[in-house]
Amino acid sequence: MSDVLERLAQVLEERKQADPDTSYVASLHAKGLNKILEKVGEECTETLLAAKDAEQSGDTAELVYETADLWFHSMVMLSRLGLGPKEVLEELARRFDLSGLEEKASRSD
Amino acid sequence: MSDVLERLAQVLEERKQADPDTSYVASLHAKGLNKILEKVGEECTETLLAAKDAEQSGDTAELVYETADLWFHSMVMLSRLGLGPKEVLEELARRFDLSGLEEKASRSD
Amino acid sequence: MSDVLERLAQVLEERKQADPDTSYVASLHAKGLNKILEKVGEECTETLLAAKDAEQSGDTAELVYETADLWFHSMVMLSRLGLGPKEVLEELARRFDLSGLEEKASRSD
Amino acid sequence: MSDVLERLAQVLEERKQADPDTSYVASLHAKGLNKILEKVGEECTETLLAAKDAEQSGDTAELVYETADLWFHSMVMLSRLGLGPKEVLEELARRFDLSGLEEKASRSD
Repeated sequence: MSDVLERLAQVLEERKQADPDTSYVASLHAKGLNKILEKVGEECTETLLAAKDAEQSGDTAELVYETADLWFHSMVMLSRLGLGPKEVLEELARRFDLSGLEEKASRSD
Repeated sequence: MSDVLERLAQVLEERKQADPDTSYVASLHAKGLNKILEKVGEECTETLLAAKDAEQSGDTAELVYETADLWFHSMVMLSRLGLGPKEVLEELARRFDLSGLEEKASRSD
Repeated sequence: MSDVLERLAQVLEERKQADPDTSYVASLHAKGLNKILEKVGEECTETLLAAKDAEQSGDTAELVYETADLWFHSMVMLSRLGLGPKEVLEELARRFDLSGLEEKASRSD
Repeated sequence: MSDVLERLAQVLEERKQADPDTSYVASLHAKGLNKILEKVGEECTETLLAAKDAEQSGDTAELVYETADLWFHSMVMLSRLGLGPKEVLEELARRFDLSGLEEKASRSD
């Protein structure tokens, strides 16, 4: 399971060159960065609503589905800008190996 | 690099029981689901703005940082609701193994 | 111009009872609160992207359009939950009449 | 009540020149457009969560408060980019005077 993001990143690179009429990923690239970012924002909203509903109902299926959509579209965004999951995972590893997860709390934002 | 999410998930589980005064993750849990979801939404907005700025400037460091924040807080959300990255990665694997990534395009939303 | 929100609120109330096949507002109500909130989130993302683009290009037409969409859908949300612009405008008036706009800064969030 | 947005817009213009140490609005301008847009996104998320909670509890006070925050910060954004509520209200008036609110439904997004 642990290499799913790497395999997905490879697929996303290949689909950049695909036909926008048959590939969803290629169709996003054809529409441009704003369209990709709109999808990231849209899936984030749907994730938040699914989390609220999961808390009420105890049913988490929709939340898993929407979080997968959020991660998927954020990976399309990374791919669009020449990045991949490797850079993000390295950043996460750096944070909790060196200084622990609490490092985040010291950020001034 | 491929097991970063699994290792991070373990850390997030341990931190649930930590002291909110010294653990950022424990402090989020102490404040409740809404606070965790506010952070997910906040980091999503910062990711979108960083992507727009990266497109203009060519500098992607902030984008990597903000995407890491987005994934991190979405994992705190999953942990809060009894889930982990495994369920999300299985959903992503299911999509592109069985029917290809284009399956998404057939969704009616 | 100043009574546009009140007139729009009246129209939104009337459309609640309209045919979802011919009224966009009625179709949102038929789909439920989550659909209305998804539209609020979607229009917020589009507003942020339009603001970034306006800063670069100097062209603000899209930003006006998207902000109108954001306010429109937030009014549908208010209407869904038995509220209208009056309550929101009263809250805004209360803030800057009594204690000034700086009151916001004293909030601990 | 109907001229609250116009009065608020005047205050926002005046505060642009105020001392960032004593004026919340001036402090947002000093931090720049991204900070203002982060606040718009943050308040949007808080509005969505308040709407979900209001649907469950029937208590709408927090929703009114968060929607006021959302409109307030979207007006700071407009002010930042040389616009005001007038342009947005004119766009809303144009839509439902000329072709009805259903015009929105004919948009292809």
